[in-house]
Amino acid sequence: MEITPDRIRQLLFPKSVAVIGATNYFGKWGQLIISNIVAGGFAGPIYPINPRAETLFGLKCYKSILDVPEDLDLVFIAIPAEKVMDVLLECSHKGVKSIVMITSGFGETGEEGKSLQKRVVEYCSSKNMLLVGPNTMGIISPYRGLFATGPHTRPKKGSVAFVSQSGNLGNQLVFWATQQGIGISMFVGSGNEAMVTYRNFLEYLEQDPHTEIIVLYLEELGKGREFVKLANGITKNKPILFLKGGRTASGAKAALTHTGALAGENKVLGKAMKQAGVIMVNIPSELLELSAAFSSVPFPKGNRVGVVTLGGGWGVVTSDLLEEMGFVLPELPKDVIDKIGKYLPPFWSKTNPVDLVGTRDPDAPVVAVEELIKLKEIDAIIVLGIVGRKEVVDLLLKSVSEVDPDTPPEFLKKVEDFSAQYEEYFGKKMVEFMEVYQKPIIGVSLTTSVSGMVREVGGCKYKALFYQSPEQAVRGLKAILEYEMRRNQSMPLSPMSDL
Amino acid sequence: MEITPDRIRQLLFPKSVAVIGATNYFGKWGQLIISNIVAGGFAGPIYPINPRAETLFGLKCYKSILDVPEDLDLVFIAIPAEKVMDVLLECSHKGVKSIVMITSGFGETGEEGKSLQKRVVEYCSSKNMLLVGPNTMGIISPYRGLFATGPHTRPKKGSVAFVSQSGNLGNQLVFWATQQGIGISMFVGSGNEAMVTYRNFLEYLEQDPHTEIIVLYLEELGKGREFVKLANGITKNKPILFLKGGRTASGAKAALTHTGALAGENKVLGKAMKQAGVIMVNIPSELLELSAAFSSVPFPKGNRVGVVTLGGGWGVVTSDLLEEMGFVLPELPKDVIDKIGKYLPPFWSKTNPVDLVGTRDPDAPVVAVEELIKLKEIDAIIVLGIVGRKEVVDLLLKSVSEVDPDTPPEFLKKVEDFSAQYEEYFGKKMVEFMEVYQKPIIGVSLTTSVSGMVREVGGCKYKALFYQSPEQAVRGLKAILEYEMRRNQSMPLSPMSDL
Repeated sequence: MEITPDRIRQLLFPKSVAVIGATNYFGKWGQLIISNIVAGGFAGPIYPINPRAETLFGLKCYKSILDVPEDLDLVFIAIPAEKVMDVLLECSHKGVKSIVMITSGFGETGEEGKSLQKRVVEYCSSKNMLLVGPNTMGIISPYRGLFATGPHTRPKKGSVAFVSQSGNLGNQLVFWATQQGIGISMFVGSGNEAMVTYRNFLEYLEQDPHTEIIVLYLEELGKGREFVKLANGITKNKPILFLKGGRTASGAKAALTHTGALAGENKVLGKAMKQAGVIMVNIPSELLELSAAFSSVPFPKGNRVGVVTLGGGWGVVTSDLLEEMGFVLPELPKDVIDKIGKYLPPFWSKTNPVDLVGTRDPDAPVVAVEELIKLKEIDAIIVLGIVGRKEVVDLLLKSVSEVDPDTPPEFLKKVEDFSAQYEEYFGKKMVEFMEVYQKPIIGVSLTTSVSGMVREVGGCKYKALFYQSPEQAVRGLKAILEYEMRRNQSMPLSPMSDL
Repeated sequence: MEITPDRIRQLLFPKSVAVIGATNYFGKWGQLIISNIVAGGFAGPIYPINPRAETLFGLKCYKSILDVPEDLDLVFIAIPAEKVMDVLLECSHKGVKSIVMITSGFGETGEEGKSLQKRVVEYCSSKNMLLVGPNTMGIISPYRGLFATGPHTRPKKGSVAFVSQSGNLGNQLVFWATQQGIGISMFVGSGNEAMVTYRNFLEYLEQDPHTEIIVLYLEELGKGREFVKLANGITKNKPILFLKGGRTASGAKAALTHTGALAGENKVLGKAMKQAGVIMVNIPSELLELSAAFSSVPFPKGNRVGVVTLGGGWGVVTSDLLEEMGFVLPELPKDVIDKIGKYLPPFWSKTNPVDLVGTRDPDAPVVAVEELIKLKEIDAIIVLGIVGRKEVVDLLLKSVSEVDPDTPPEFLKKVEDFSAQYEEYFGKKMVEFMEVYQKPIIGVSLTTSVSGMVREVGGCKYKALFYQSPEQAVRGLKAILEYEMRRNQSMPLSPMSDL
């Protein structure tokens, strides 16, 4: 059976879905999946299948999928492994196109499970049914409004695709993406990959118009050379961010892949992947941080950075990190110094980084950023502490309302509103400048960013991006620069330094 | 004038305070400081000084400190630089012991400022008045209930001391510490260090019974060799976490220290500091992460780690990071496997990491952690995904309440309460095990930890510690292990690898 990108697209854009093993028993997989699909608002027929229920989640429940009156594109299976073969028979009679098998207890559990898994794959192949899993935590397809994972995370539509062999790690990444405002094009926990492998998803994602960035977590590469070949083509147009689980003997043992002895081969493959343009990271949260940069800002054409900071210390720290990671901070022309200086006290630094010296003039940060981004000597901007200041202002407002009988509450309300509006305004300005000058502006909020790292500005291609701390901004900038330089066939910089 | 630890103690534990330049003009330094002291609840007389106000923040206002009826221990000065000499004269007449000079426009601004700064120091010295700053963002002394910084962050009492030459960076660290539940013993923005330097604070902190961990941000080392000598003594009992601003030419230029040419000397000093046991970091947030570990858990005696995880992928990632940073994951004895196995499905991994395979038995994580920490072959535990799961449960509860007419709301409420209580219970258990077995248990919540990284458990020496992601846990563990090994004069491990 041939697993084409079209088949994967069918899987992700089903007209109708059924869940075999649907239940409202709290916390069971059959409950997690069906309630997520229903609550997520899937805009098509949903059929719960359970011989012992009349209705589930307000929907009519069927004893068998053979009783379902309409055609079924996609079926989730969440019943014990030993009963799976029976329902697969029914699926084939029903003409089901794709199956996502949540059920575990297959290849991951030993010889018996392996042999059952083999039978499942052979049967599905012979009946032309696409099989994801088994032992998967589900799929998410935001452009179809289909949320079918154990955790009820519902990321918004976006350009980042996640493929993960570990369901829990993948789901957590999607959870973080949702919190941080990063939109996704799809998520799949590929599980045991008994039939459909991550490579099939990659072939699909290469063509998928919604996907611009691909995030991969893999423990078992299988045909590694095929992956490298595939990646080499994809990375010309779409960056691949890749975390390999089981790099060490301890990790491989934990992954039960038993490839710990093949550390040498892993190393060779790792090198090949880097040559194929794959961006390798070792830390899960870095997958998120980097996808935020790739999906939000234009890519820089060079390594010359202008820094605007509210507070000198952060400018120093950021300058150190920039230089240590291969960037330079160009000096500023005299006319630019003069223009910015109009908004600052006479003793300001008059250099790059531009330290705004705690100025409260709301125009100063905007003028400084625009004057710098305009310069042909500057390829990218990092701006620290402008957005995020609201949290400090709010603390002050709280104090004053507690202890100052002389300041009217209306005044405090006005300050609070202004500070919230200003942050929104500044984010908009950043996006506007990026659209005009086609250079990245990366914000550092220095706070925990309750509003998320990525903030969309209506109708704009780019997004306002705020990392919590400067090293994230510098790492993000480095990643998009290296990707851009490689794509342009320029001389690559030295490999991304570790912080 | 001799700056002894006793003088620093006087500064941090004043009986009375005055603010020269106090105002309720929103956002001015004179307003920020006085309103913070008042709202922070300083338990002693507070005197606002301003010739043009009758009352401020509900307190009687004085035209000059000479009008204040009582003795004054500590005076904050927040008036323009050119008026400073006049009020210093008044301070000396009044017999003021310590001055924190918020005012900027001195040594950091050029030749004129430098010469004024010199006069200020000479005058204060001659009158035996201790001078912090100028150009400082203030001090915090939680054990005296004194919060006197620009930002109104009020960290709780604890064991971490912060000394920062950059006010904004230092204040931000304290802000993060407050959010993350890390208690502090003091904070000082040492500013221009015209008289009192970071070394004076270090001498005090070495003796201060409240301080167990010292966090330093410095741009200008001054007498570096004295620092190394001092640090060498301190680190035997108290770890010093140190971030040097201006390591690179760009950073040094931004710091206006103009020591960029002395990069070689910086390198030599850096080496000497490492030998003196100073823990050097390059990233501000790492100062926080590491202080959380140092101030919360017992230090490990070796590099053998047991991992308990809710979800295999996180176990794999953590195992890789542990091995890459010099840790080992010992195999588990058969009887321990049998005991843990009673709580898990038959196909569980039976190895270290212990993957709890999504079990919902509330006893399983507790039993697994205790069985591992008991083992003489294990020095430390990392436990992932148990605390933090609540966020996922809450999402599910929301879905079910929206789409399941058959599940009674009381049931959902019960699940919600149980999941919250369980997280608290599990944190308590972690602390209890640490007290009994004297080995660190480090949690990874995988969430944004709205409750903070550090959670106190009433009456206990240790605290429940939850990092957001595994690399933070591994870095934290590595830092406390290296410190402990050095202190025990054992063979040090290889230097902390970079992630």
